[in-house]
Amino acid sequence: MTRLRMAMIGGGPGAFIGPVHRIAAELDREIELVAGVFSSDPARSRAGGLAYGLDPARTYGSLAEMLAAETARADGAQFVAIVTPNHDHLPSAKAALAAGLPVISDKPMTATLAEAHELAEAVEASGLPFGLTYTYSGYPLVREARARIAAGALGKVRKVVVEYPQGWLAGPATGKQAEWRVDPSRAGAGGCIGDIGVHAFQLAEFVTGLHVSELLADLGAVVPGRQLDDDCSVLLRFNNGARGVLLASQIEVGELNGLRIRVYGETGGLVWKQEEPNALMLHHLDGRSEVIRAGTGLLGPDAARRTRTPGGHPEGYLEAFANLYRDFTERVRGGEAPLLPGVAEGLRSMAFIDTAVRASAARAGWTPLSV
Amino acid sequence: MTRLRMAMIGGGPGAFIGPVHRIAAELDREIELVAGVFSSDPARSRAGGLAYGLDPARTYGSLAEMLAAETARADGAQFVAIVTPNHDHLPSAKAALAAGLPVISDKPMTATLAEAHELAEAVEASGLPFGLTYTYSGYPLVREARARIAAGALGKVRKVVVEYPQGWLAGPATGKQAEWRVDPSRAGAGGCIGDIGVHAFQLAEFVTGLHVSELLADLGAVVPGRQLDDDCSVLLRFNNGARGVLLASQIEVGELNGLRIRVYGETGGLVWKQEEPNALMLHHLDGRSEVIRAGTGLLGPDAARRTRTPGGHPEGYLEAFANLYRDFTERVRGGEAPLLPGVAEGLRSMAFIDTAVRASAARAGWTPLSV
Amino acid sequence: MTRLRMAMIGGGPGAFIGPVHRIAAELDREIELVAGVFSSDPARSRAGGLAYGLDPARTYGSLAEMLAAETARADGAQFVAIVTPNHDHLPSAKAALAAGLPVISDKPMTATLAEAHELAEAVEASGLPFGLTYTYSGYPLVREARARIAAGALGKVRKVVVEYPQGWLAGPATGKQAEWRVDPSRAGAGGCIGDIGVHAFQLAEFVTGLHVSELLADLGAVVPGRQLDDDCSVLLRFNNGARGVLLASQIEVGELNGLRIRVYGETGGLVWKQEEPNALMLHHLDGRSEVIRAGTGLLGPDAARRTRTPGGHPEGYLEAFANLYRDFTERVRGGEAPLLPGVAEGLRSMAFIDTAVRASAARAGWTPLSV
Amino acid sequence: MTRLRMAMIGGGPGAFIGPVHRIAAELDREIELVAGVFSSDPARSRAGGLAYGLDPARTYGSLAEMLAAETARADGAQFVAIVTPNHDHLPSAKAALAAGLPVISDKPMTATLAEAHELAEAVEASGLPFGLTYTYSGYPLVREARARIAAGALGKVRKVVVEYPQGWLAGPATGKQAEWRVDPSRAGAGGCIGDIGVHAFQLAEFVTGLHVSELLADLGAVVPGRQLDDDCSVLLRFNNGARGVLLASQIEVGELNGLRIRVYGETGGLVWKQEEPNALMLHHLDGRSEVIRAGTGLLGPDAARRTRTPGGHPEGYLEAFANLYRDFTERVRGGEAPLLPGVAEGLRSMAFIDTAVRASAARAGWTPLSV
Repeated sequence: MTRLRMAMIGGGPGAFIGPVHRIAAELDREIELVAGVFSSDPARSRAGGLAYGLDPARTYGSLAEMLAAETARADGAQFVAIVTPNHDHLPSAKAALAAGLPVISDKPMTATLAEAHELAEAVEASGLPFGLTYTYSGYPLVREARARIAAGALGKVRKVVVEYPQGWLAGPATGKQAEWRVDPSRAGAGGCIGDIGVHAFQLAEFVTGLHVSELLADLGAVVPGRQLDDDCSVLLRFNNGARGVLLASQIEVGELNGLRIRVYGETGGLVWKQEEPNALMLHHLDGRSEVIRAGTGLLGPDAARRTRTPGGHPEGYLEAFANLYRDFTERVRGGEAPLLPGVAEGLRSMAFIDTAVRASAARAGWTPLSV
Repeated sequence: MTRLRMAMIGGGPGAFIGPVHRIAAELDREIELVAGVFSSDPARSRAGGLAYGLDPARTYGSLAEMLAAETARADGAQFVAIVTPNHDHLPSAKAALAAGLPVISDKPMTATLAEAHELAEAVEASGLPFGLTYTYSGYPLVREARARIAAGALGKVRKVVVEYPQGWLAGPATGKQAEWRVDPSRAGAGGCIGDIGVHAFQLAEFVTGLHVSELLADLGAVVPGRQLDDDCSVLLRFNNGARGVLLASQIEVGELNGLRIRVYGETGGLVWKQEEPNALMLHHLDGRSEVIRAGTGLLGPDAARRTRTPGGHPEGYLEAFANLYRDFTERVRGGEAPLLPGVAEGLRSMAFIDTAVRASAARAGWTPLSV
Repeated sequence: MTRLRMAMIGGGPGAFIGPVHRIAAELDREIELVAGVFSSDPARSRAGGLAYGLDPARTYGSLAEMLAAETARADGAQFVAIVTPNHDHLPSAKAALAAGLPVISDKPMTATLAEAHELAEAVEASGLPFGLTYTYSGYPLVREARARIAAGALGKVRKVVVEYPQGWLAGPATGKQAEWRVDPSRAGAGGCIGDIGVHAFQLAEFVTGLHVSELLADLGAVVPGRQLDDDCSVLLRFNNGARGVLLASQIEVGELNGLRIRVYGETGGLVWKQEEPNALMLHHLDGRSEVIRAGTGLLGPDAARRTRTPGGHPEGYLEAFANLYRDFTERVRGGEAPLLPGVAEGLRSMAFIDTAVRASAARAGWTPLSV
Repeated sequence: MTRLRMAMIGGGPGAFIGPVHRIAAELDREIELVAGVFSSDPARSRAGGLAYGLDPARTYGSLAEMLAAETARADGAQFVAIVTPNHDHLPSAKAALAAGLPVISDKPMTATLAEAHELAEAVEASGLPFGLTYTYSGYPLVREARARIAAGALGKVRKVVVEYPQGWLAGPATGKQAEWRVDPSRAGAGGCIGDIGVHAFQLAEFVTGLHVSELLADLGAVVPGRQLDDDCSVLLRFNNGARGVLLASQIEVGELNGLRIRVYGETGGLVWKQEEPNALMLHHLDGRSEVIRAGTGLLGPDAARRTRTPGGHPEGYLEAFANLYRDFTERVRGGEAPLLPGVAEGLRSMAFIDTAVRASAARAGWTPLSV
């Protein structure tokens, strides 16, 4: 089977997430990066292409140029990966879809909920695959957690606590990674809530199979002068009546990327931590506690088929990311890939950001979440 | 120096907390249990006294009887420890104080805020020492955390996350420990919030030296048929503007006694976990992370003087509890013992319970906390 | 039931282990310290007695004086606890036994194997209870481990790894704790091997129920000028053919008191760590791993009856130590207390030290261990 | 810069390590797999090529055929990766070198020490780059540990403890991975010692910069009927006088891939664990303990340039492996890549296996290790 050919938008010099997408896409040798627009600045775009080792002829100065050129080639790109800041997601995705190319995009779906609806319509009209890289739902043990909960391992879910502490924006937001994230014109209305809170939200819905129906949000801009939120506390209700708490912060000094989720049901509890991703703790009402470890024979098919190494040989963030690209590849090739986040998850996440930002600004108390 | 003579109220057969108080009080050989009323049922009280190895003549059927007898003896009890359910704290404490005896009481101070004010007045009028066993503030590394924050190790505090997950009430509340805690007539208006939420609250104020000024509470009764809350999510604001989150639950299956606190400031962050109490993690803005371990030479005087073993020889819950009795002993002997929780902490904690219960019931949003 | 009356030998000002014995003995209110010789220096002995809050009339200047006085009193001491350096264990124990008093002694049993045999004969001749405070076998989860292995949880034991890393003697050995331990005239022929290696040895035999039949010892004196070993590597064979490794060191900078044991059998594996004593990891051949936590309903009777707090309320070193005193109390009162280390364990441990020291000095290779 | 073109020998259907080499080689887009002999069975070799997505014309039935064809192509393979069982390393490497192609090979270097010398001569004669995939020396924090020790962070090294516990061969050795490892005709004279003991050996020398000068080995075949060792205990002396212990086992039920190393010097101690590879614990003689985390600004250049993600985004086994391929790429392109294990490390490792096997079989006691 030949590799799918990928074009990338964004991810040029200095970006963290561009190389991550490239590694993840190519990790399982089912995809090859062949073209890209790596910056809106042509010289920087060329530099980006060189850094990726691309044919200079296929490093473009604009998306329009790339789409025209690639769709004209017999060996042209077969899909587009969007790794630009949020405000660019909508136009880039629409253009790619209009050119007949499937899209996989960094999260969140767009900068605003209205844009997300516009994109959702474009995706539907196109009939093309569309995926969102909610990275953490790619971890094998996250999928194991989802499968076990779906199979009733915890009984009815009663409580979800999902936390995403970081500390890297505790000081001034300097550098390429930080600057756009604290700038409403590029990041959208949400700061921390849109950058990482939304990961926590998607993880909670993914793992439990539930939907958040109502929330109470308390977003703060802790660092003086910051325009967007950098610390978020959100109380949740799920559609089965379960209670929840979602915490996300980028000012917690010493926290690196501490996403973790705990789910409690009538008969069990479950804990997963992104920084120790190869273990899942499962508690039972009778007092027994199990450690379920990646790569062992205890895992169900969703986890097992997204695992590359035997137990004790840690897989990490890049492999989780690569699992989303494997899902996307299956989808592009006509498969179902039901665990790949897409339009539905994108809309829900944008509604989450939108609702949380508005409700917090208005000190509105409990507010329904609807797409 | 001779040992202080202690009388106990409550803590008879089947109680968990009575023997804990006894062990903690006597651990450092500065106190001796000499008398008690261990149950309102005289036969059970006698059985309790026997279990403690007391002189049967000094096991009483009622508090009034005990106070009369003990104050008449030359070698009578010199203070009273109250370990009854919450609704009994006020009458017992008032009676003991009226008999001229200092009081150390289990938390929370009373069943209601009004009772707490009444008791505060009684304490003040008596001029006698009064302590509250907020156990977790007795851990050496909690005191180290407090001292370091006070000394500026984190810079200005910006964020506090304090969690107290338990799972033992996820099923039906049966057994002596559970029954009174879910019964409003004995526990007061708060269930989980008054049983363990209040520990988290006191710990947060103790460690940071800050006061909660405002809160937003979401208390729930998750287990069907339960009258009092068993799952609590509370958002906080502190008097320096810091943001906070307090989570407490008794329905999180698999959690035993997972109290933990994380405090983040402008220049550092700090993490302590009750189930691994002999380590304190300290993060610095420059990326350094230190593990501060109990019993090593790195600890300041507050922690060092409440440590009994060298590093690596774990002290635990009973020793933390004993540290409060050491504080109390110092206070009774005329010392200052500034870290012992007393009337001020008791009033604040009762105001916390009261405010949280009322605000949650009214879905009131942010509500000031004042004593 | 009245408390047993205890006299202590050793443990005066500056000692670590004296107060530990006192706390442990009295923790469960079944024993009361009533008399002692706390130092061979009478003034220091008196100071020690004052520090313990004893009646000055019962603080003695010599063991002979104490035994004479106490056995003459109606309320005299009922047993003797020996907490002196190793070279004193034999004469003190013999004197106490000769006075008709049961003995509980710090480990190792004596300074030399010959002395141990002499003491064993004295114990046997006396018919009196004799216990040794191999502290770590007092931990509830160590007893749980022993019970589970005995019940076949691991199948036939094949491999034992027991490690005891410390770092406190990595620099010069100064201070009361250190000085006698590096002095052959007080510590005996073993340094690290006799101080902590012997704990590891006893733990391995206790947990597995096996006996070491052969060993290969490599003891070193790493710190320049040190006369006794401070770093020990010992290979083991057990009487069922199982292989083993015993490591003990006092020069491993940063290690506090890191005793840990791992036992592997045909069908399972088990891990326990003294610095995290309230959890026991149990692995199964089919890939399942369980965390067994103290204070939960999963523990068998040996562990459960030596537990004072519910799960998640950590017990530690002092409580483990106290469990040995509870065993001893049962023994003195006529019970069996089969888990209390005594003469047999003392002899085996002394044979271990003796064999390891001799074999290492002679570079003797595999050497039988026999008592 | 164009990618280096790689040919692989071995690693066909059912192999674990072939896909690992492929992923690792291509991860950083500096290498591309273009050809291979994936099995000595031509049909299986073709199936392997298909699974890797290779041009069927470049999947060969024998090494000779591949070398002839590839060296004849303008776009032929530029180096060979050897991932066959140990007995094949020598002939394959010699053939590749003879064809003028650099070689990167799985460890151990060969099946016997004599073969290793033969290969070393062939490498030297060829003047071509030669690398060995001692995976664990590719972890960024292992390189950080090495750099810090070299810079004196621990003072003079006194003690090294390196352990490599696994449990997957505790039962019968069935399946492709297991069978050849327990077969002397394919694995060589060492079982566990050659499969994983050698990793521990290389790690110890790599991290400390020291050489083992003498060893005492106790290798056992624990599982009935096994011809090669499956459990190894080795005592070490290093060339600076430091003492060491190396433990490796494949019968420790529940252990997955628990390689870990602890190094202690005069002024510090250091701990790294492969299953939690993104943290390094550093202890200081004054009691301070630091956690050094991957991806933070605290790392030196050796670690930083082999890190792809920010702190808290775990990298794992595949990325460590990829780091060796990056080293190898630099070497092939004329750089120095001083951390890449090569002939010297290969010879030392083979001498280690050879010495340990011989010494253990002879119960020889301390035996010099020389290449």
